[in-house]
Amino acid sequence: MTTMNKDLTGHLDFFFKPRSVAVVGASTNIFKWGSFLLVHMIHGKFAGNLYPVNPKESEILGLKVYKSVKDIPGPVDLALIIVPVKAVPGAIEDCIAKGVPAAVVITSGFSETGAQGRELEDKLMQRAREGGMRIIGPNTMGILSAAGNLSATGAPVFPHSGSVSMISQSGNLGTQMMAFAEDQGLGIQKFIGTGNEGDLDTCDLLDYLAQDPDTSVILLYMEGIDDGRRFLESARNASMRKPVIVLKAGRTDVGRKAAASHTGALGGSKDIFEAAFRQTGVIQAGSPSELIDLACSFANLPLPQGNNIGVITLGGGWGVVTADECAEKGLLLPDLPDDLIRQMDERLPSYWSRGNPIDLVGVVDLEFFTTGLRGLANSESFDAIITLGVVGTDLIVDRSARLGAKYSDMVDEQMADFISQDMANREFVFLSDVNRLIRKTGKPIVSVSLSGGSSRVHRISDSEKVVVFPTPEKAVLALAKLYEYSRFRSRAQQA
Amino acid sequence: MTTMNKDLTGHLDFFFKPRSVAVVGASTNIFKWGSFLLVHMIHGKFAGNLYPVNPKESEILGLKVYKSVKDIPGPVDLALIIVPVKAVPGAIEDCIAKGVPAAVVITSGFSETGAQGRELEDKLMQRAREGGMRIIGPNTMGILSAAGNLSATGAPVFPHSGSVSMISQSGNLGTQMMAFAEDQGLGIQKFIGTGNEGDLDTCDLLDYLAQDPDTSVILLYMEGIDDGRRFLESARNASMRKPVIVLKAGRTDVGRKAAASHTGALGGSKDIFEAAFRQTGVIQAGSPSELIDLACSFANLPLPQGNNIGVITLGGGWGVVTADECAEKGLLLPDLPDDLIRQMDERLPSYWSRGNPIDLVGVVDLEFFTTGLRGLANSESFDAIITLGVVGTDLIVDRSARLGAKYSDMVDEQMADFISQDMANREFVFLSDVNRLIRKTGKPIVSVSLSGGSSRVHRISDSEKVVVFPTPEKAVLALAKLYEYSRFRSRAQQA
Repeated sequence: MTTMNKDLTGHLDFFFKPRSVAVVGASTNIFKWGSFLLVHMIHGKFAGNLYPVNPKESEILGLKVYKSVKDIPGPVDLALIIVPVKAVPGAIEDCIAKGVPAAVVITSGFSETGAQGRELEDKLMQRAREGGMRIIGPNTMGILSAAGNLSATGAPVFPHSGSVSMISQSGNLGTQMMAFAEDQGLGIQKFIGTGNEGDLDTCDLLDYLAQDPDTSVILLYMEGIDDGRRFLESARNASMRKPVIVLKAGRTDVGRKAAASHTGALGGSKDIFEAAFRQTGVIQAGSPSELIDLACSFANLPLPQGNNIGVITLGGGWGVVTADECAEKGLLLPDLPDDLIRQMDERLPSYWSRGNPIDLVGVVDLEFFTTGLRGLANSESFDAIITLGVVGTDLIVDRSARLGAKYSDMVDEQMADFISQDMANREFVFLSDVNRLIRKTGKPIVSVSLSGGSSRVHRISDSEKVVVFPTPEKAVLALAKLYEYSRFRSRAQQA
Repeated sequence: MTTMNKDLTGHLDFFFKPRSVAVVGASTNIFKWGSFLLVHMIHGKFAGNLYPVNPKESEILGLKVYKSVKDIPGPVDLALIIVPVKAVPGAIEDCIAKGVPAAVVITSGFSETGAQGRELEDKLMQRAREGGMRIIGPNTMGILSAAGNLSATGAPVFPHSGSVSMISQSGNLGTQMMAFAEDQGLGIQKFIGTGNEGDLDTCDLLDYLAQDPDTSVILLYMEGIDDGRRFLESARNASMRKPVIVLKAGRTDVGRKAAASHTGALGGSKDIFEAAFRQTGVIQAGSPSELIDLACSFANLPLPQGNNIGVITLGGGWGVVTADECAEKGLLLPDLPDDLIRQMDERLPSYWSRGNPIDLVGVVDLEFFTTGLRGLANSESFDAIITLGVVGTDLIVDRSARLGAKYSDMVDEQMADFISQDMANREFVFLSDVNRLIRKTGKPIVSVSLSGGSSRVHRISDSEKVVVFPTPEKAVLALAKLYEYSRFRSRAQQA
């Protein structure tokens, strides 16, 4: 197993845990990038010293402005560079003179524009390395770091703090993923838009995240890699420690052509990448939304020890759909063991299905549902559980209660409020029970809400979360991928 | 081509355009099904006579209650039967005596419970047929009909009126689909939960919808079919007239087992169904949410004449992802023709990609985006267009404006409101342009919002709608399926 160059790890800490940050090219114009960056740093509650740099201003957003990085009194760990392309070489020289060890170059107009831009970029990166500086970018949307209270992106995204870190070879797509994470309750540790990778590249950052104690899951949006052999080494090293989930874009000739015109990166053929990913234990996501869905599961659920799935549902049709999905993704639905059937016969209403899926046919009392779930989770026959239809019932109940209040004397608005709130409370109790069962049995249990929208991480406590998917296919895919990684880990440990 | 029995068509109109409806088993208890049905009929603004029937009550929700169907003064076109299973035979006898031609039997406890229930069901259905009555159910969640202002379902779902009709062999899953339709802006014409299909079955209803002038798209959730040959005949007949989109559950052995315990229906093997679907022009959906996504497209977009796709994007990464998806679904991304490149060079900012996807690299002025879109839509090289990233920008702009108002003196809340509203307006103008281009060119144009959530039908006018998807993969799948059906129709017309 390779380990990362210790010096580089230490150096990269300047990016992700800087004590002081200079925004070179800070602007008073709230509609410009130089302002966005500063606003996002402030809104993200950066705790260190923040220095706007602009030769023409004296104060921006209440902060004292410096004419040059060299004028800043204390040390500067990280420079965010957003000046026009012609001014970037001067800014880099100033940073070298000041002894700044790390810079994120947001400015575009380098190798992505052609041969001339590439020449400029190469020269600049070489100069920075000679001067002891490492660079992320140029042409990047920036970086985030929860450990560093760092919100250094052009886009206004502020995901909750968590343990999932992402490397993205597309800034636009990557920051959109961060917006999804924020919306879906997925906690993010670090985000890096790698831009043109003039200096630090995807492999450097993957090595860094592999050894980062704050990162438990690594996401990677990848269009192309220069050194395939090195990538596979880095990926395998990382996968041995924590799950690495990759969306490989440019899988097809057409996609590759689009990728080439986008970042200039070269992609490999689909077969080569898939074989390589399998060997290295990397989990493949099929789409950007899948990347986030899988991250929700890997960050918050234990790995299953096998592929025997128990399903419990409030509606038969959803059970059938889920059974099909499981079969098509290589998961098994074993029959219920006799002792479990006997046990459930004593506790469940007589019309229960006596099979897997356990179909409770719209039972109103959630206690029965929890009983069935507990039976499945505690049985040795099952490695993971899917529950269908409880979460989201509150929407239907609320609607019925409102209609009742509108048309009947039996219910008034106050009672409708009570009924709705009561159902919402019961859903929270149910998710708390799910959480307890996950912690007790060590098995992943996922719920499907059937109420539309996106996958969501629900917070039970600071350290305990459960995952709710909007559709059966997303829940099944999550369990299939958790199982795939579980097998890789146990094979790798045996080897 | 087969045509439906004219008498049956006329008879089925009693279900979907009844002039008067009796709710047999209406309840004063707002927490019971007998109340739900009545409330939903009232809330759905049923325009004909509505008669609650209950021997123990005199008034429910302000309506006069009859002791028996036989006591109702005028004619009754449709009975909704929700009395306990033991009272169903009596209720049917009363309906026959009254001359009621149609009944939806919601009550469960029939063939789905075993041999005894099946015997009861068979006898009852035979008796109804002899008495001149046709029956939907038993054990159904009910029916909807926009043409009849009929909301006769147990679940509180009230989708907008439209031209998509659905037949569902699962009531729970089917009514949930109606809730999705309501949420996503998809207009629904008719819904039928077929229940146990004791009398009227999926094929009867498919034949009816095939000739229904109010229905332009048919959705079908199917677990099993008794008479495969008849189904294929009905399906082909329907597909020749309008798109039929099917979700076949019980595709796998495990799914089939779950389906057998759910409705008792027999399913066929996946290969047999897939081959049959291909022959008959039926479009397959992979999941319940896909069924609704595809309905949004088929109901609101023209069919493409070929599979040459033009893509235009605000962000390169999304273009690459979309290109991959197209390639994997059999769609082509031809190069831009030279004259289009020349034309666009004159009108677009210099950094535009000059390729397909057209990448505008985050251009702020939407006029450029519309110019590029118009160029693609008007070019003979492309049969369909995908736009990426415009819709949903308002969320990011709103956030930036709020941050500006919070931290800068340049913007106040009023100005932030204005900025957000302006962006939302520009998105509506963009979607109106998309709509105009669809009508002018006859080509399907779909947009991807990149802002999460579900697929949505946006209303431009009463008759003009556009479709916005949350992810590229959903947009690509929609175009691939539209193209699949387009090919079936042109092959069928040539034959």
